[in-house]
Amino acid sequence: MVECVPNFSEGRDLAKIDAIVKAIASVTGVLVLHQTSDADHNRSVITFAGLADGVEEAAFRAASTASAIIDLREHRGVHPRVGALDVLPFVPLEGTSLDECVEMAHRVGERIWGELRVPVYFYEAAARRAERKKLEDVRRGEFEGLLTACETEEAKRPDIGGPGLHPTAGAVIAGARKFLIAFNINLRTNDVSIAKEIARKVRASSGGLPAVKALGLALESRGLVQISMNLTDHEQTGLATVFEAVSKLAQERGVKIAESELIGLAPREAWEQATAAFLKLPTFDGQRIVENRIERLRRDQNPAL
Amino acid sequence: MVECVPNFSEGRDLAKIDAIVKAIASVTGVLVLHQTSDADHNRSVITFAGLADGVEEAAFRAASTASAIIDLREHRGVHPRVGALDVLPFVPLEGTSLDECVEMAHRVGERIWGELRVPVYFYEAAARRAERKKLEDVRRGEFEGLLTACETEEAKRPDIGGPGLHPTAGAVIAGARKFLIAFNINLRTNDVSIAKEIARKVRASSGGLPAVKALGLALESRGLVQISMNLTDHEQTGLATVFEAVSKLAQERGVKIAESELIGLAPREAWEQATAAFLKLPTFDGQRIVENRIERLRRDQNPAL
Repeated sequence: MVECVPNFSEGRDLAKIDAIVKAIASVTGVLVLHQTSDADHNRSVITFAGLADGVEEAAFRAASTASAIIDLREHRGVHPRVGALDVLPFVPLEGTSLDECVEMAHRVGERIWGELRVPVYFYEAAARRAERKKLEDVRRGEFEGLLTACETEEAKRPDIGGPGLHPTAGAVIAGARKFLIAFNINLRTNDVSIAKEIARKVRASSGGLPAVKALGLALESRGLVQISMNLTDHEQTGLATVFEAVSKLAQERGVKIAESELIGLAPREAWEQATAAFLKLPTFDGQRIVENRIERLRRDQNPAL
Repeated sequence: MVECVPNFSEGRDLAKIDAIVKAIASVTGVLVLHQTSDADHNRSVITFAGLADGVEEAAFRAASTASAIIDLREHRGVHPRVGALDVLPFVPLEGTSLDECVEMAHRVGERIWGELRVPVYFYEAAARRAERKKLEDVRRGEFEGLLTACETEEAKRPDIGGPGLHPTAGAVIAGARKFLIAFNINLRTNDVSIAKEIARKVRASSGGLPAVKALGLALESRGLVQISMNLTDHEQTGLATVFEAVSKLAQERGVKIAESELIGLAPREAWEQATAAFLKLPTFDGQRIVENRIERLRRDQNPAL
């Protein structure tokens, strides 16, 4: 199974978003797990999953529909973007590797350029240039800036197609990455400097926990502050590690945890390992969960399931 | 799906245990999840699961094979027992109720007496007499004691069949209960009185946490002590609640938790809710786990799966 989490530059016109969802769901065996639209960002995120072939086909149909109905020349929103289908990450679930997702991104990218004439950049694990690993680096300049920069700067041109962007659909930034867990911890204080300080201590970029991004924010209407985090590789740093680190730092500052928030979905493996870590089980194998064991045995007996 | 966890009075002769496992696995769709044998107890526990019909059939075949090959007159072991197939609990998994498991226990019980002439007692949720709810009350006197007691005491006679026990296979104690989680916490001290005191504070029978059984033990070879627990209803008291209660009581006594142990299997729901509780998520729905969501959507689209 593979998950795909495309971001589209349309968050206001529900008919257009619905047309994209329908294009994705039209592939047999592909399941739309989640969708969310934001009017200020003018952007939608659709999460779908299935076997690799179906997910690839659905990603192409999404690109095709989005580039036909979204015109970036008219698009205004607070979130940076470079394409109608802006970001197209493939994420391995149980039974699939990150390498397979890299290959999927490359194959779909070739097809998007070949059939739709929308050029493609590759990022994260699918990056073909070291300086394109980070999404924010690829997207710098956005649609308007890259439209002109591509004419003169070789370094700005897409990995496939071009040399310029598509006049209305821009470019697709396709990639492969591990499952990202968006997880926030709210603290019972209105002093945002405490949240900012704890965020700085836990995030990887300032020497904290590996594969953790963190930001300290005020939740003004609720009188709380928040450590808003992305766990980009839960095998490196899991939910329990992050929670216990933030708990300790909050306790040292005399602040209590009010509650946590999980944004979107989490992978089973991350959830199971978190319980094991909290319970201080020295090792834990998912086969100790009765339903997992039943599923494994059923699959062993009947691989068609 | 239903789980069944029969206990057999044979833990030494591997050929006999294997014959029983084969009888269970001979039913199409029934999955043997786990098995364990203990020579001192001279007893084996086999865990299997499947749809209700298959599990009922497999339970009957297990009773049939066990009563043909185990002779209680020759059985010696430290664990109390009254039958060749001694205890036969049915446990609801996702999608099944405890009431359905009670009906299964009663139906299989009727068939065991009808076809095998082995009488049956009912315990826990399947009990037909208030004084037979607890397994230890039903089993008091064991095979030898009940063999004679049944002749004279109406109160000792089986719920189905009899009035006496089967001369070599004794009686089956069939029942229905919720999933039992066997979970131990080891403390870094060699003072067993601390483990005993904490066990007394957390167990339901002395006013502690509902649906928790607990015992304090010394793990002499490791220089640790253990709170050995059974969680008999994780919806009433879950893993996180128990762990946090024991942690607090240990901390108050200046003792650290060394590690925990999960014995056998745990249900997915209990594991998922434990993470949510540890993370202080105010509510948690299993559909936030990506694999659960995929399974639900696949089943909705194709109920045959």
